Amino acid sequence: MLTTDPQQTAPTEGLRARRRRRTRAELHAATVRLVRELGFAHVTVDMISTEAGVSPRTFFNYFPSKEAALFALPGSLPAALADRFAEGTGQDTDAVLRDLGDVLADHLQEAAQSPREMEDILRIAEGVPSVLATFLAQCEAVERDLAGTIARRTGTPADGESAELLAGIAMATVRSALKQWSRTSDLHDGAGPAACVRDSFTALRALLGRAAVK
Amino acid sequence: MLTTDPQQTAPTEGLRARRRRRTRAELHAATVRLVRELGFAHVTVDMISTEAGVSPRTFFNYFPSKEAALFALPGSLPAALADRFAEGTGQDTDAVLRDLGDVLADHLQEAAQSPREMEDILRIAEGVPSVLATFLAQCEAVERDLAGTIARRTGTPADGESAELLAGIAMATVRSALKQWSRTSDLHDGAGPAACVRDSFTALRALLGRAAVK
Repeated sequence: MLTTDPQQTAPTEGLRARRRRRTRAELHAATVRLVRELGFAHVTVDMISTEAGVSPRTFFNYFPSKEAALFALPGSLPAALADRFAEGTGQDTDAVLRDLGDVLADHLQEAAQSPREMEDILRIAEGVPSVLATFLAQCEAVERDLAGTIARRTGTPADGESAELLAGIAMATVRSALKQWSRTSDLHDGAGPAACVRDSFTALRALLGRAAVK
Repeated sequence: MLTTDPQQTAPTEGLRARRRRRTRAELHAATVRLVRELGFAHVTVDMISTEAGVSPRTFFNYFPSKEAALFALPGSLPAALADRFAEGTGQDTDAVLRDLGDVLADHLQEAAQSPREMEDILRIAEGVPSVLATFLAQCEAVERDLAGTIARRTGTPADGESAELLAGIAMATVRSALKQWSRTSDLHDGAGPAACVRDSFTALRALLGRAAVK
């Protein structure tokens, strides 16, 4: 995708984008706070909007539901990480999966809420079907975006099967890593899930590279 | 999982199970009929219940939402297919993925709605976020069940990373196949998605087995 020269548009664009990011973050934080305090079922969009000092109408400019506000996952890799991956060397499946694991772990490390908060949210997702469904839909949006970035790296079509399969494999690996991380929460002592994502990609590549499933 | 001898319990179990299966199928059919006629947004659980001749209370014994009734995917492989896969030979990743592709394609062929109906439903899922989210949640339930069956085949723990990763890869492949199938609906001339699932597993195994991503 072509973008205009950042030098020319940065001041105005930057201000508006920053304000939007701040409101989004405030709505997310208000949702997490209220859900912790009152339990997911008892929190409404009206309550979140009041807590964040905006109208419900504004809330819906940012999120389609309280479930979405609870996760507030970005739908795509940041441009810098996507470029780093797309411009990486090695077109073979193993190199692509290795570098995907790297950028996804880096992304989680930078973007993530505090590990404690993330654990709380994943636990709610286990117990509330609509939250799990929203989490999976957000993962699928990342997956679709990722397929385009993988296609850039490998020179294949964005809706081609190879890019789609690799994106699906990568996101299945991230989800598996998050499950492992949340299962062993007593062991990782406040550390975030990035290390688990790296481990899972290593396990994936070993699984695909060796003879017997272990 | 151990089950009781089917010879002993079949007569009673069979009758109740058959009645449940029939009511479930009627609710699903009523949902599809109404959604086609009126559009997804205009259909309510009350309307579906009336159409199927049951109370809304009964509806909720079968499905948590109209979204779930629209798909009505079974949450697990039928026992006969699961056994065939678990007892298959070959513990290496490639053999496991090959046999997974076979049983999942067979399952889709047997269980599936008419191809036309399935296309309609997938098209609704593309456009309605809550339907897509429900579809993904139902896929995740199948994935979790599949991990247990894969663990049976490979002799690894059911919540172990290998079984989970393979199940995630398999379901990502099924989802990719359904996308390809629904994208090329004008080409497959009324045929169901089973052939696409077989093709996608072949593409997956080639992708994992060869040097460059194509």
